[in-house]
Amino acid sequence: MPKQVDHAERREAIAHALWRVVDARGWPHATLRAVADEAGVSLGQLQHYFSNRSAMLTFALDYAAEQTSLRIAARQRALAPRPHPRDLVRIAITEMLPLHPDARATSRVSAAYVLESLHDVELRERTAAGMREGRAMVLQAVHTAIADGHIPADRDPQVETDLVLALTGLGPLLDLGVIKTDAALAAIDAHLDRLFSPVAS
Amino acid sequence: MPKQVDHAERREAIAHALWRVVDARGWPHATLRAVADEAGVSLGQLQHYFSNRSAMLTFALDYAAEQTSLRIAARQRALAPRPHPRDLVRIAITEMLPLHPDARATSRVSAAYVLESLHDVELRERTAAGMREGRAMVLQAVHTAIADGHIPADRDPQVETDLVLALTGLGPLLDLGVIKTDAALAAIDAHLDRLFSPVAS
Repeated sequence: MPKQVDHAERREAIAHALWRVVDARGWPHATLRAVADEAGVSLGQLQHYFSNRSAMLTFALDYAAEQTSLRIAARQRALAPRPHPRDLVRIAITEMLPLHPDARATSRVSAAYVLESLHDVELRERTAAGMREGRAMVLQAVHTAIADGHIPADRDPQVETDLVLALTGLGPLLDLGVIKTDAALAAIDAHLDRLFSPVAS
Repeated sequence: MPKQVDHAERREAIAHALWRVVDARGWPHATLRAVADEAGVSLGQLQHYFSNRSAMLTFALDYAAEQTSLRIAARQRALAPRPHPRDLVRIAITEMLPLHPDARATSRVSAAYVLESLHDVELRERTAAGMREGRAMVLQAVHTAIADGHIPADRDPQVETDLVLALTGLGPLLDLGVIKTDAALAAIDAHLDRLFSPVAS
């Protein structure tokens, strides 16, 4: 079904055009017309794929979330067999922070989307659902790590999950150059060192 | 000089109108015209105070930062004499999170401003300077707490400062209702409990 593939490719190309507009000029400028211009398609062609701005933003966020998941999965697969849960969590957190160009684009789209979501019930539900899903994955990893003796049993899994997710708060500091990549990684490692027991060899 | 007071009051009223527009409809809708309508002044009157959107946003952010500082100072003054540094840091962090209506408004303005700043060199410098100032204050508090024996001497002050600031990463989770106030406070307290030595009586 080559036509479907074309459609999927076109939608992805539009998502990338949206990211470029957001990255270069900011969220308020990401109108259907600006994205159509950036993608090199007509407004009518763009509207064939997305009937309004909200539908376009929703797709772009879903696509950004999917790209982040793929990057995390690829890096996790590259670990040695039976990886330590600390390494799995560290990859997930670092891929959510603006530490390299791809992650920077998706992290900015996500941050902009959170703001946009506050004023749109449907977007908010979708964004909250995505966050709840991400939180559930970290919570599951923490539960497993406690059961396997990688995290001390007296830690509260809910609290530890929220503290791991809070590390994404380093994002704005990185985006504005207040701290550098090395400092963010040192903070993440210090936190994970206190959460996880030493890696068993 | 009553005229100056009027000017200051008018500018603050405009800042509040901007926050209401941002809170109700989102950042992209915070145009000079929308804010003039919300504030009940003409576009010409608004432009008498702010020649363009960027100047208006800059004032609104400075005012939000000032309001946050005032709330923090007021709560810190209400503590018992010679307060424990843990209590001082806890107040600063909780006032930066959307845990009550005033803090919610200023926290959203700040988050929106960070995004806007990424695409405007002048705004970025201003926002980064504000963040660096806030970081320097927390760093100073950490240094003092180490010197006074409230934080173990083997902790890295830079790392501990960044981990305290990372707690603002709970903001999006709160804004979207993924976690509740109680959970955010439990996470903050757990982190501060591990950072600070027990309060000496």
